[in-house]
Amino acid sequence: MQTFSINGERLWDSLMEMAKIGATAKGGCRRLALTDLDKQSRELYISWAEEAGCTVTVDQIGNISATRPGTDMSLAPVGTGSHLDTQPSGGKFDGVFGVLSGLEVIRSMNDHGIVTRHPIEISVWTNEEGSRFAPAMMGSGVVSGRFTLQEILDSVDVDGIRLGDELQRIGFAGDAPISGRKYHAFFETHIEQGPYLEAEEKQIGVVTGGQGQRWYNATCIGRESHAGTTPMHLRKDALVAASELIQKIESIAKAHPPGCGTVGFVQVKPNSRNTIPGEIELSIDLRHENDDALSAMDYELSAAIAAIEQQTGVSIELEPIWYYEPIAFDKDCIAAVSLATKQLGYSHMPIIAGAGHDACYVSDFAPTSMIFTPCLNGISHNEIESTTPEECEAGCSVLLNAMLSMAVVESTA
Amino acid sequence: MQTFSINGERLWDSLMEMAKIGATAKGGCRRLALTDLDKQSRELYISWAEEAGCTVTVDQIGNISATRPGTDMSLAPVGTGSHLDTQPSGGKFDGVFGVLSGLEVIRSMNDHGIVTRHPIEISVWTNEEGSRFAPAMMGSGVVSGRFTLQEILDSVDVDGIRLGDELQRIGFAGDAPISGRKYHAFFETHIEQGPYLEAEEKQIGVVTGGQGQRWYNATCIGRESHAGTTPMHLRKDALVAASELIQKIESIAKAHPPGCGTVGFVQVKPNSRNTIPGEIELSIDLRHENDDALSAMDYELSAAIAAIEQQTGVSIELEPIWYYEPIAFDKDCIAAVSLATKQLGYSHMPIIAGAGHDACYVSDFAPTSMIFTPCLNGISHNEIESTTPEECEAGCSVLLNAMLSMAVVESTA
Repeated sequence: MQTFSINGERLWDSLMEMAKIGATAKGGCRRLALTDLDKQSRELYISWAEEAGCTVTVDQIGNISATRPGTDMSLAPVGTGSHLDTQPSGGKFDGVFGVLSGLEVIRSMNDHGIVTRHPIEISVWTNEEGSRFAPAMMGSGVVSGRFTLQEILDSVDVDGIRLGDELQRIGFAGDAPISGRKYHAFFETHIEQGPYLEAEEKQIGVVTGGQGQRWYNATCIGRESHAGTTPMHLRKDALVAASELIQKIESIAKAHPPGCGTVGFVQVKPNSRNTIPGEIELSIDLRHENDDALSAMDYELSAAIAAIEQQTGVSIELEPIWYYEPIAFDKDCIAAVSLATKQLGYSHMPIIAGAGHDACYVSDFAPTSMIFTPCLNGISHNEIESTTPEECEAGCSVLLNAMLSMAVVESTA
Repeated sequence: MQTFSINGERLWDSLMEMAKIGATAKGGCRRLALTDLDKQSRELYISWAEEAGCTVTVDQIGNISATRPGTDMSLAPVGTGSHLDTQPSGGKFDGVFGVLSGLEVIRSMNDHGIVTRHPIEISVWTNEEGSRFAPAMMGSGVVSGRFTLQEILDSVDVDGIRLGDELQRIGFAGDAPISGRKYHAFFETHIEQGPYLEAEEKQIGVVTGGQGQRWYNATCIGRESHAGTTPMHLRKDALVAASELIQKIESIAKAHPPGCGTVGFVQVKPNSRNTIPGEIELSIDLRHENDDALSAMDYELSAAIAAIEQQTGVSIELEPIWYYEPIAFDKDCIAAVSLATKQLGYSHMPIIAGAGHDACYVSDFAPTSMIFTPCLNGISHNEIESTTPEECEAGCSVLLNAMLSMAVVESTA
């Protein structure tokens, strides 16, 4: 079967041009959702999409859709897309690569004079990072129905600024409805943000699903007292209990490969050098690609907490705050990515998405899969995030050919 | 041998009167060093001391001395005293009991018409708590030569306000020299701030010395990365290493009874729910009454750190920031307390001071010991700190008779 090429140099140039908006001294980007910089990046993207002949619409949560027509406009589009917002100390590729490889797909289709039966649609999803406004993946989450439009519009940042007001202010409170969105198929290209592809020396990760996640807040309540005058056997040291819990989370995760367990946030009260901590708050993040394994980890966590409570006399409240079921991507979409990868001759492996992505929410209502490309040392959410023009070209080429296989090529120039 | 009584009701009334200055809703006190409230408490105390016939002087660091003359003013005084400043959420007795039991000693000597050969001197030491200006025990530390006057005057609070300026502002930058201070003997009464007397059902703790302390800052440096995409075996989780260290400190302390080991302060970076912590700062506080045991604990801490570094790949820097040698109080002073306790018929036990006290610094230059009295559930540095009129009366009676045994009673009314 015929394959089509993309223009890797043009893709890279666009990535570098976009990276100037919010560029940081260390070579990364700081472009928080719905700031003036986000507005600039959105406007640059729209100008490029319109230059490429797309029709651009903006929906009520600020998601941007750029559509290249197909011969049968009654058919659902074949879609791709990702996000333009970044972490506070983010890189140049996380999200942006997914948007601009979509743009490069359309530019390349124009170059090749390709006519498809299904329309092609690129989405920029609002606030994927969740850094300024929580939670993450808002734009795709509202479209999928995970969140209501109103609750998201009413969310505020740390300064109390309302998301809906910011959307108005930057001119991206659109009127396209958020409901009834359809895709014939959806693909998202993204840097892996992890070390597997690099370790296995593969160019393409064929993403078969997303890890399940269970998030909790835990509060350890002991008894605050004087570090010099309270004998060891009479203490109820909340930090000693919390440190046992942290150790236990580590061993639970290691007992369920390839699951992950992380305590990323800890707050100690009163946090004074010579006072035994009376209260600790901490976050717990458990992840596994298999839901049964994730449930087993959840059970072991509760059992570990009961044991630590009994052993230390510190009481520990565990509050589950989020459950995100493991996602299995669509078989046909996975096959399309896999086939394109093979036809193009790239080395590849199946992989599970460890992080959340817009594609995970899109998969609620459309056949979906993802294409991963390597990033240097697996590092992301960091200004030193790095990849190469060749790695980006490979991912974008797979995207083009996977999308075309779904969109049905009617003719070429 | 004859013993003399104090007026327990008057002592209690003075404690309750003083507790009104900076009283908190939960029944405690907030009277931070060199604030307007500290000024008020100092002025009230001086008015009482002058009413009791004392001569009052203030030295260059704001320590207040109230002197009742002896028949031989060439002799060094027999001293007592403590502090009037409190923790931010402190109690009514920590420190204040030591000052006002000194005042009650003089009032009782007046009642009994006691004439002593040595003068009697009560000290209010500036900023014992160290809550507003660090370090703690400043006033006694300057007099003992542990700190220079200038460095202490130049210390600043969190708002950048200089101690020396505050001392001027509240009118307690005195002119009495801080050098050359002498005592024939010094005693400090204090609530125990720990659980031992209560557990052993003893009225008086005959304090034989102060615990040695070693304070450190530790920094654990791992690698910050994404909680969802970094497999367990490739992580360098600084918090996992820190939690092992916290566990190890607990077991080191327990292996050296009655030593203590505490991590009271922890700071996690970046402290974000879905990022593996890259850096942890924590405080370590090791204490033991025996210096060899304290050195062994110090050695075991270093060994534990080396093992954790090897096992986790996280590097841990240990910075010793303070070493405070165990203090053995003066044998004659201890004997004077012990004898007075027996003569008065109080139940008693020898005890080690777990916390630092002004008496510990006074013992650098004068024969010293301390008298402990129970506090409810051993709780201090807390608004619910509690003791009884009877417990205070017992401690103050012991103080009076121990001081008189050293001051030599020439005549009584």
